[in-house]
Amino acid sequence: MHILILGAAGMVGRKLTERLLRDGRLGKTDITSMTLQDVVAPTKPANAKIPVKVVASDFADSGAAAPLVAERPDVIFHLAAIVSGEAEAEFDKGYRINLDGTRYLIDAIRAVGGGYKPRLVFTSSIAVFGAPFPEKIGDEFFHTPLTSYGTQKSICELLINDYTRKGLLEGISIRLPTICVRPGKPNKAASGFFSNIIREPLAGEEAVLPVSDDVKHWHASPKSAVGFLVHAGTMDLQSIGPRRNLSMPGLAATVGEQIAALERVAGKKVVARIKRVPDPTIIGIVSGWPRDFVTDRALKLGFTTAEKTFDDIIRIHIEDELGGKFAA
Amino acid sequence: MHILILGAAGMVGRKLTERLLRDGRLGKTDITSMTLQDVVAPTKPANAKIPVKVVASDFADSGAAAPLVAERPDVIFHLAAIVSGEAEAEFDKGYRINLDGTRYLIDAIRAVGGGYKPRLVFTSSIAVFGAPFPEKIGDEFFHTPLTSYGTQKSICELLINDYTRKGLLEGISIRLPTICVRPGKPNKAASGFFSNIIREPLAGEEAVLPVSDDVKHWHASPKSAVGFLVHAGTMDLQSIGPRRNLSMPGLAATVGEQIAALERVAGKKVVARIKRVPDPTIIGIVSGWPRDFVTDRALKLGFTTAEKTFDDIIRIHIEDELGGKFAA
Repeated sequence: MHILILGAAGMVGRKLTERLLRDGRLGKTDITSMTLQDVVAPTKPANAKIPVKVVASDFADSGAAAPLVAERPDVIFHLAAIVSGEAEAEFDKGYRINLDGTRYLIDAIRAVGGGYKPRLVFTSSIAVFGAPFPEKIGDEFFHTPLTSYGTQKSICELLINDYTRKGLLEGISIRLPTICVRPGKPNKAASGFFSNIIREPLAGEEAVLPVSDDVKHWHASPKSAVGFLVHAGTMDLQSIGPRRNLSMPGLAATVGEQIAALERVAGKKVVARIKRVPDPTIIGIVSGWPRDFVTDRALKLGFTTAEKTFDDIIRIHIEDELGGKFAA
Repeated sequence: MHILILGAAGMVGRKLTERLLRDGRLGKTDITSMTLQDVVAPTKPANAKIPVKVVASDFADSGAAAPLVAERPDVIFHLAAIVSGEAEAEFDKGYRINLDGTRYLIDAIRAVGGGYKPRLVFTSSIAVFGAPFPEKIGDEFFHTPLTSYGTQKSICELLINDYTRKGLLEGISIRLPTICVRPGKPNKAASGFFSNIIREPLAGEEAVLPVSDDVKHWHASPKSAVGFLVHAGTMDLQSIGPRRNLSMPGLAATVGEQIAALERVAGKKVVARIKRVPDPTIIGIVSGWPRDFVTDRALKLGFTTAEKTFDDIIRIHIEDELGGKFAA
């Protein structure tokens, strides 16, 4: 089985690559080769036992997809996108990469011909929903994006449903919760604080909390996100029908509950590194974000999280990113 | 006020043109000129008291929109599309006209600059919904198209919402019910029979009914459709918020109720011209179509139908299309 990962240099892409190389198989099928694409060449994994090709190409370039799908990958993980803030600030760039790029990809798949019909796993986002919405967003709530990024993800979901319905590919779009704890340095994403307030204190650093403790949000660990992708890449799609867009399971937690979990797992001294500095801009943005979901469809289709509580999310971070230790 | 109608040669476009020229105004503002565009030049209305320009251009041509919006029309009615059956049979053509065409249009509007921000009234469709769905589809039910046409309409709704949110235009997408009674000759559209079984018998002709009497569907008269467009072109959009896509009011009726209404309005002899010839293909297609709606949002925003019963729909047809007479 040949696997193509688009957007492989990002955090989720790197973790997915690691997992697939470690497993050596996807579902019951051995992985025989992989191609990793991103706008900057992904790092070639050390000690891979199978051929791994890295490709640097611009996903917004109409010719970028053709050579990648010409190798007829059996499964394509499409994680390539520019993030919400960038798509909002750079309108044309957002549409070019997040919408046109996906269309180039699915049209390139279609152009291969000869019965080629790969599985396409597309990472959508809960940004397809914007306020007002129910306290818990169900599987049949409508697309109400309040960002260009969310609009582009919504549109790609619809395109992938239609191309699948027409038999041109075997698509599935999974809406990832906000990934927490996101490893790495604090970034400028408005959602960054959800991870910052856990990751930075555990590293002995101060973190700024710009919203109030009662802000509730929908989280999943990086480990869960990779698990969703793998399941989407292997699951039986016979029973799913034409609605290939699914909100993934997650964990609803308020910022206060996040902090309480951090105190339970790591102690008061760690929690004391969180500084409350309200930011009206971020408060405004976050007020339009989903807080909680009912994900019955995904659960029934076998998607599961790696965590049961926010304490687990913190423990997964300490285990996977910090080698089991933190700055007490 | 300058008005541009895209797709003006179609049935709804012609009726909208007639209505606007008759009214001489849109809301409280005098119409000073109109441009009518379609892929074949629309017929120039006789006796128009204002300048009316007709333009033949291909909406799928990336350069077609620019000269039309360069005149800075205050209101644009965007009715241009290829129909469901054609978009399904000709995949590329459907996406080119129904999706790319709309994108060319909104990008051309954006490119005008200088604060130009026209009202854009887009005719969407109940084809954005496909089975399974609730018996009555509410305002928050999600996009579940089962055709490429419905997918393209859904995507255009999302694009117009996003461009509106970004302040690039003032968009509103209205999902028209199936128009009944559609004047003209029987066509090959799968939905054609809903109109055929009324129009043809009233004209003294036989009509084929390919489905059973208990098939329920969602209808509005051509007069109502034009009324929706006019209201969308004039209504206050301050209160509507970022969700600019609205299911229009209509009338749910079974085929049996349609026929009973025809008998009440026109008599048994007319009804006897309906021949029941079940067609498994059409039965299959129609089973995936919406049957009934709750359109509270549109009603609250002032959209109203011209008919209260299916009898009214038939009477409107006899009045507007047959000069008040039918073949008894």
